[in-house]
Amino acid sequence: MAAFEPNNPGYRAAAIAMFERQPAMHTLGIVIVRLAPGEVELAMLHSAAFTQQNGFVHAGIITAGLDNACGVAAFTLMPSEADILTVEFKTTLLAPARGERFVFKAEVVKPGRTLTFCEAKAFAEHEGKTTLIATMTGTLMAMLPRATASHEPRPSHA
Amino acid sequence: MAAFEPNNPGYRAAAIAMFERQPAMHTLGIVIVRLAPGEVELAMLHSAAFTQQNGFVHAGIITAGLDNACGVAAFTLMPSEADILTVEFKTTLLAPARGERFVFKAEVVKPGRTLTFCEAKAFAEHEGKTTLIATMTGTLMAMLPRATASHEPRPSHA
Amino acid sequence: MAAFEPNNPGYRAAAIAMFERQPAMHTLGIVIVRLAPGEVELAMLHSAAFTQQNGFVHAGIITAGLDNACGVAAFTLMPSEADILTVEFKTTLLAPARGERFVFKAEVVKPGRTLTFCEAKAFAEHEGKTTLIATMTGTLMAMLPRATASHEPRPSHA
Amino acid sequence: MAAFEPNNPGYRAAAIAMFERQPAMHTLGIVIVRLAPGEVELAMLHSAAFTQQNGFVHAGIITAGLDNACGVAAFTLMPSEADILTVEFKTTLLAPARGERFVFKAEVVKPGRTLTFCEAKAFAEHEGKTTLIATMTGTLMAMLPRATASHEPRPSHA
Repeated sequence: MAAFEPNNPGYRAAAIAMFERQPAMHTLGIVIVRLAPGEVELAMLHSAAFTQQNGFVHAGIITAGLDNACGVAAFTLMPSEADILTVEFKTTLLAPARGERFVFKAEVVKPGRTLTFCEAKAFAEHEGKTTLIATMTGTLMAMLPRATASHEPRPSHA
Repeated sequence: MAAFEPNNPGYRAAAIAMFERQPAMHTLGIVIVRLAPGEVELAMLHSAAFTQQNGFVHAGIITAGLDNACGVAAFTLMPSEADILTVEFKTTLLAPARGERFVFKAEVVKPGRTLTFCEAKAFAEHEGKTTLIATMTGTLMAMLPRATASHEPRPSHA
Repeated sequence: MAAFEPNNPGYRAAAIAMFERQPAMHTLGIVIVRLAPGEVELAMLHSAAFTQQNGFVHAGIITAGLDNACGVAAFTLMPSEADILTVEFKTTLLAPARGERFVFKAEVVKPGRTLTFCEAKAFAEHEGKTTLIATMTGTLMAMLPRATASHEPRPSHA
Repeated sequence: MAAFEPNNPGYRAAAIAMFERQPAMHTLGIVIVRLAPGEVELAMLHSAAFTQQNGFVHAGIITAGLDNACGVAAFTLMPSEADILTVEFKTTLLAPARGERFVFKAEVVKPGRTLTFCEAKAFAEHEGKTTLIATMTGTLMAMLPRATASHEPRPSHA
């Protein structure tokens, strides 16, 4: 995709800090592998605690990785004062999440002042083979301080 | 919605057994609250371990609850020999997942021999108030034994 | 759903005017049947010109009706100076679009200053029977004058 | 993406014939520009008859092009006796559909015996510039003769 120019020169530190402040990422064992303006790659080791009835990783957990990859990718292009919110996403499950390690790659398709559109892919690494197991398209929203100072304690796409 | 006639007279025990075989549900603390043909209600207590940077439950975890609610609802209408697979879903995040308890209600919109379509809603209970925080529409697929005996170790929408 | 309070006392005339300014609605023969704050019902007679290879109405045309129903429903709750834009939608096709007449019912699930979330259903009337044939969930965006005065000739979720 | 091996040696003629049997494509002026196994490119000239209130092509019409591109791409990989059905799609609208000509490019992400997953992009050509205006992810279903001989006059994902 296109190369993007970050609004925030400190985008890398800001994105890492935002990611690290998410307890869910620690609990799921998801880490940042690669980070560039508008692009991110996360990885997660298999954990039996997050599987479904056939021993594959649960679709919701794969979605957590995909959504977070989209969020971090979008966040790298937002101004330094923005917080970020996921508006919606669609996950398509192409193959069972069977593997020892999972990789989530997201990229910004179109950034915007308010809304940013991302795409992400999840891959399973199993016995030396990498398989595309899921895709996501998602819409992310920048929350700027003006909005957070409004009458609502926490704005919800307001 | 319409009342559905289950194909499997033992649908209740089968759905509970399928749900209980999912380690991810135990880990997330999600339980079945109500079960009827084509309808299910799950619930989950807040856990700090699954929150994002603002202290709200992560969208992927909310999606895990919604997806599982859809899966169980669809499964109640499938024949006894079927296994179930999620094909795709879209999650719309209407409000932050802030609360002490979360409820996931799903219902079948249209059952089918191969594909079943479901809708689900997630609610947050916070300080005595219940808020609709997310919706899902999803497609589920019945995997019948014939298919699982095919050349693939695990069929993926084959 | 909830009863909504329109921001624009002239919401009815504004929504009808917006709808009438769409040549696509005239060409497809789609008309407004019912209008209330946050709710709308459109209808379309079958036209062979818009069918696919099996004689059913094309999914894109059904989507045009569903999307417009969502747009009008969302628009009824927007301030008088707003223009409206569709951000994204998902259409699920439950049954073939076979019938003499089609009805598109949309309602706002959650209105917001910037984003409004809607759901819609398409029904086919065929030989005296009404069938749910498709559902949509969509995100709509209010474009306020401030934005339209920006550097872009036409803002795109900017 | 990967190169696909068609099941049907006459895939090209079959796909063109299926496309040509759709009156909606004629009415909208959509034509096939390029066709390969698992890939297709369609094009449509601007028509004022299909615009919305700002003079841009209606999102439902753009969706018709995207959906049909996905359908033809999926169909090229299906066996000769299969008919095809769209199960669901999500359209994301990145920019207004302003232009003299529109191009719809689809490719199969994962083919399957029953379900095929596709992605598509819509581009607007305006004053010599090409802009990505929309994306789609969709699920298509092969309908094999066995199914069409079932008790239902027309199977709907049965």
